[in-house]
Amino acid sequence: MGEKDKKGINFNKKENFSEWYSEIVQKAELADLRYNVKGFLVFQPWSVFAMEKMYKHMENALQKKGHKPYWFPTVIPEKNLLKESEHIEGFVPEVFWVTEAGKKKLNEKLALRPTSETAFYQMFGIWIRSYKDLPFKAYQRANVFRYETKATRPFLRSREFHWIETHCAHRTLKDAEAQIKEDMETTKEVLHDIFGLPFIFFERPSWDKFPGADRTFAADVLNPDGRVVQQPSTHLLSKKFSEGFGVKFIDKDEKEKLAYITCYGPAISRIFASVIITHGDDKGLIFPWKIAPLQIVIVPIKEDKKVIKKAEELKNKVQEFASVEIDLTDKTPGEKFNQWEMKGVPIRIDIGLNEVEKSELTVFRRDLNKKETIKEKDLMKYIEKVAKESGENLIKKADKIFDAKIKQTKNMEEIKKTIEEGAIAKCDFCSVEKEGIPCAEIIEKQSGAKVRGTQLVKEKPKGKCAVCNKKATEVVYIARDY
Amino acid sequence: MGEKDKKGINFNKKENFSEWYSEIVQKAELADLRYNVKGFLVFQPWSVFAMEKMYKHMENALQKKGHKPYWFPTVIPEKNLLKESEHIEGFVPEVFWVTEAGKKKLNEKLALRPTSETAFYQMFGIWIRSYKDLPFKAYQRANVFRYETKATRPFLRSREFHWIETHCAHRTLKDAEAQIKEDMETTKEVLHDIFGLPFIFFERPSWDKFPGADRTFAADVLNPDGRVVQQPSTHLLSKKFSEGFGVKFIDKDEKEKLAYITCYGPAISRIFASVIITHGDDKGLIFPWKIAPLQIVIVPIKEDKKVIKKAEELKNKVQEFASVEIDLTDKTPGEKFNQWEMKGVPIRIDIGLNEVEKSELTVFRRDLNKKETIKEKDLMKYIEKVAKESGENLIKKADKIFDAKIKQTKNMEEIKKTIEEGAIAKCDFCSVEKEGIPCAEIIEKQSGAKVRGTQLVKEKPKGKCAVCNKKATEVVYIARDY
Repeated sequence: MGEKDKKGINFNKKENFSEWYSEIVQKAELADLRYNVKGFLVFQPWSVFAMEKMYKHMENALQKKGHKPYWFPTVIPEKNLLKESEHIEGFVPEVFWVTEAGKKKLNEKLALRPTSETAFYQMFGIWIRSYKDLPFKAYQRANVFRYETKATRPFLRSREFHWIETHCAHRTLKDAEAQIKEDMETTKEVLHDIFGLPFIFFERPSWDKFPGADRTFAADVLNPDGRVVQQPSTHLLSKKFSEGFGVKFIDKDEKEKLAYITCYGPAISRIFASVIITHGDDKGLIFPWKIAPLQIVIVPIKEDKKVIKKAEELKNKVQEFASVEIDLTDKTPGEKFNQWEMKGVPIRIDIGLNEVEKSELTVFRRDLNKKETIKEKDLMKYIEKVAKESGENLIKKADKIFDAKIKQTKNMEEIKKTIEEGAIAKCDFCSVEKEGIPCAEIIEKQSGAKVRGTQLVKEKPKGKCAVCNKKATEVVYIARDY
Repeated sequence: MGEKDKKGINFNKKENFSEWYSEIVQKAELADLRYNVKGFLVFQPWSVFAMEKMYKHMENALQKKGHKPYWFPTVIPEKNLLKESEHIEGFVPEVFWVTEAGKKKLNEKLALRPTSETAFYQMFGIWIRSYKDLPFKAYQRANVFRYETKATRPFLRSREFHWIETHCAHRTLKDAEAQIKEDMETTKEVLHDIFGLPFIFFERPSWDKFPGADRTFAADVLNPDGRVVQQPSTHLLSKKFSEGFGVKFIDKDEKEKLAYITCYGPAISRIFASVIITHGDDKGLIFPWKIAPLQIVIVPIKEDKKVIKKAEELKNKVQEFASVEIDLTDKTPGEKFNQWEMKGVPIRIDIGLNEVEKSELTVFRRDLNKKETIKEKDLMKYIEKVAKESGENLIKKADKIFDAKIKQTKNMEEIKKTIEEGAIAKCDFCSVEKEGIPCAEIIEKQSGAKVRGTQLVKEKPKGKCAVCNKKATEVVYIARDY
């Protein structure tokens, strides 16, 4: 390992995003790709600590809104998957199948869940009887499996990933639609306000819906290479699955009716990729305070009894309010600084004899990469300030970059140029129903980008479709994905 | 559903334990067995809330002792399992195999992990280089899969269960043995002191070790039917797996050596079974305070504005210190009382107009099944008291029952009688090495019970083997299992 390798990332995030990402995953010890099954990886402690916190924030938000936690089996019998034809068509190419147990061939193949609609709704059919049971709001924290044929990338796309899936049954279409809005609010509360991720929630065009859904809504986050990553999506499944699984209830009017179903899927391990990408810089990771694996690290810059004693004193004082560690390894102070900057710890406290004598502390804020000196007695106030400010700073910074990347375009030339520049193109468009497919195909062919959809609060087009020049009925957004 | 069904459990815990258990799992809504894959079940919210808290306590204890969390893949390639011959022999009859993906047959079969030694140690072989990397203390929270051929029972034995597995590599045998002791201490701290479960940690006889282990230690918890359930076990795997997976390090003396490996497996969903069984009574569940899904329920016994207002006032006051809910369903107060007693909520607060007028509260403690009246202003003090006392009460009560069930025996007649009575027999024994197998077989044939092992702190036998009358070298414990 050369000198160059020791400090920060060798690649520039903006110019060599892909290499930057691979290097940060390895150097910050987030995941090890050397496990010997293709597309499966080992999540290392630093990422697990962060993702456990992310789970907690997301689960708290869901529980507050009345979702109850379940643990469903990992395996789903083939017959369940076959019940909804669009669903099976969409997922079968990606399903891992369990066919043997011990030395026996199983009578029926079992799918490793690629998603659990066909497990939950079978039980919904048993559990739901009356309108009094509705809304029925369930969720589970689970690992899911997809036999991806596209190239896998750590956290962004692997063959096993860690997510939450919520499944809800409702009395009326109106209730189901209100759930979709609630899911979007949850996404904003957690992904934007806590994790600091900017995104737009799009309704996907008719040709790009979740297999089995009436309507699909999904949050797109933007990477520095101009490609978007689909983060949580929420789906109006309506009555399609209710029919297959007999999710019926006796309504107030004593008539038996099919329930409206919605589902929502925040993929924690993929959202973690967006946290790495959105906030990280060329020195390494930057974590929002609330999901940092470690919030404060104390680095004694001299091996001296007084210094160590002071470090321990500070740790004891601070640990009730924040996670804190003292770095007592035998690395040099410089190596320690680089390591903790790479790992994205929000606050570093450096203590030497000078600091001990003057009752001062040298503190480093990772969100601003700024070093300053404070009075020791002001430490708690300083931590409170950074905890609050750093989160806000990261959000503001990310929002600014994101907002600058959305550009109004009028025709194919402008769309192409915008996409080339790594931005999201916005334009008037003929139709997101099947009549618009030819225009979407032209866009994809000429720019390599896709029509991501429309905003839920409909924007009114002012002119004609940027591609075919017919009357526009929609305002759509166009971006590359992976 | 008849009147009888509405109140408590229809079966007596002591006399009809098996029926009592099935009924409590169903009536307290802990798990639904109607999922359509044999041996797999749906864990319902009430059990998930409790098990999430149990996970948290166990993970906190492990992290404090320096274990770092990982998430490993669910699938393990067949070649990994084949590396340790005893291990594969022990586990292969129980392995579910993934053989297809999409429409393709896989080149290599993938096991759904029955346990993850052969996944972790492959990576240990890559990660561990020097004595400075040791001890290497890892763990993961995971679901594991075993194709059980014995009858499954919810939480106690199913084909998918939820556990923690720790895997550690050490420089010396002494360090590895110290880890075994630490695992036992962790078990006591969490299972006994927090969950309130009495157990004995046995070293299993040589013929009953974990496949691939040098020595196996396991905690046995006793059920009211006199059968023991194996709870966490910890294994000294020594160098067997290090050899197969190349887990080597350069020691202080600059020589390359194989690491000593230990692993420990607290099965949270099975430990939850012991929580249900140890503390529950004929009214339903009883939860220790720290793992109760809900700690306090407020039941307004009259639908009156003043009553509801008071309930909300109390909820707001209490919720910073405990989880609390107001039961506003349209059940009668009697039905509500029965339900919350069935669900094992530690404290119930009943409020009517009388209570509001007198500024008093009627409170019910589930651990003592005792109703009393307190001044409203003393509520916080009362909660603190119950939180502390109820845990201690449950532990004391469970310990007393457990201790009374261990009986010294001198010969086969006494062993048989003790086992008949549903107790654990203790006796002098010839040998826990293979020479003792004939005696163990006689015991099993005549009493239906098994030699569970010896205590880690060796007890000295005073006489001769209770079966063959030869010189005793051990004191063993004998009990039935499932």
